[in-house]
Amino acid sequence: MSSVKSFQHEVRLRTAGGLSVTDITEDVQEAVAASGIRDGICCVYSPHTTCSVRVNEFESGFLEDFAVLLRRLVPTEHYYAHDDWDRRTENICPEDMDKGNGHSHCMAMLLGTAGESIPIREGELQLGTWQRVLFMELDRERDRRWLVKVVGNEA
Amino acid sequence: MSSVKSFQHEVRLRTAGGLSVTDITEDVQEAVAASGIRDGICCVYSPHTTCSVRVNEFESGFLEDFAVLLRRLVPTEHYYAHDDWDRRTENICPEDMDKGNGHSHCMAMLLGTAGESIPIREGELQLGTWQRVLFMELDRERDRRWLVKVVGNEA
Amino acid sequence: MSSVKSFQHEVRLRTAGGLSVTDITEDVQEAVAASGIRDGICCVYSPHTTCSVRVNEFESGFLEDFAVLLRRLVPTEHYYAHDDWDRRTENICPEDMDKGNGHSHCMAMLLGTAGESIPIREGELQLGTWQRVLFMELDRERDRRWLVKVVGNEA
Repeated sequence: MSSVKSFQHEVRLRTAGGLSVTDITEDVQEAVAASGIRDGICCVYSPHTTCSVRVNEFESGFLEDFAVLLRRLVPTEHYYAHDDWDRRTENICPEDMDKGNGHSHCMAMLLGTAGESIPIREGELQLGTWQRVLFMELDRERDRRWLVKVVGNEA
Repeated sequence: MSSVKSFQHEVRLRTAGGLSVTDITEDVQEAVAASGIRDGICCVYSPHTTCSVRVNEFESGFLEDFAVLLRRLVPTEHYYAHDDWDRRTENICPEDMDKGNGHSHCMAMLLGTAGESIPIREGELQLGTWQRVLFMELDRERDRRWLVKVVGNEA
Repeated sequence: MSSVKSFQHEVRLRTAGGLSVTDITEDVQEAVAASGIRDGICCVYSPHTTCSVRVNEFESGFLEDFAVLLRRLVPTEHYYAHDDWDRRTENICPEDMDKGNGHSHCMAMLLGTAGESIPIREGELQLGTWQRVLFMELDRERDRRWLVKVVGNEA
């Protein structure tokens, strides 16, 4: 009979803004190793509403291409009710008044879930050859954090 | 040695249609509390092909912005082969004949997965300050349901 | 007290390219049955950066509609820095030089996560009436594989 284990680790970072992407693969791998879990699921999660964790290639040309696409689909220079301080009454966050982030929320929602779930086998993340775990900032330069949760078997 | 637990709960709702969004965070939190699971992963899942569960801010301006974006990217007034009853031969659903939902399927697919996976620690969903769990209707007013599955440790 | 189990299975396939979609639902169901796991979470995962696993309806009209949408949002005939071999210095993959796949990466990122997490109860995937598990090729005809990881209780 096998014992279940749940392990959580948190990492803080300062992003650069401007749709910058940080490769967090090694930090995730270290957390999996620290967990002692050999087989299970690794959930890498952003607790922010204007960031996204995504698995894809970390290649500067592609990341530039994707930033161009995202800005074309969700233009920054556009009316966002979220940034209309004459209308807004909910969740008032003073620091957002200087620089609206309605487009950042829309980008995050379009990109999908807050996190990625990745299988673990024999203690290894089952990433493919070109897959990396990416933390994408969709808002301005900010202090951020991400979580990794691992659930599975130790033996 | 620690025992694994899996817990599932289902909630039914009637949506309003028109890209309406329901904040289901409290229901999800109650299910996590009822599960008795202290550490693990919570998977909130929509069993429908024209709805989406997503984590983001529940702020009416943002939700309006996102609806505008989604309708611009995936226009309702457009030819959809899925709604072409002269051509369609598969998965015939009579109630869809009155009002096509080809655009709703496209929106759901573009938005990403059917559900969200959220870490749980010390019995608490690890949602960030502004994060809420949202159930988004992409089709007409309908009877819907969503599931929450929690897997992890009790102790 | 209940024992946790983690089960992994891998399936290989040759895709047709051209945004072709393969219905892998039965293979996923067979893997869940083979796992012996009665309650838990099933993570279906693509280890590729230009494919996506998604849950939606397998209806040819819809899949055609979605391909049209995806090509409109992310045009193939466009400048992609990822495909600019005068600039590219990272992750050189000779076989991509004949036919660029910058658009495929952008499509994958826009579609969301690499995989889908689906609850399991009493040994059954909790898919809704019209939900199927779909493997979507966003690149040319290629040899591919996908993984299924199941974590949960046997009894």
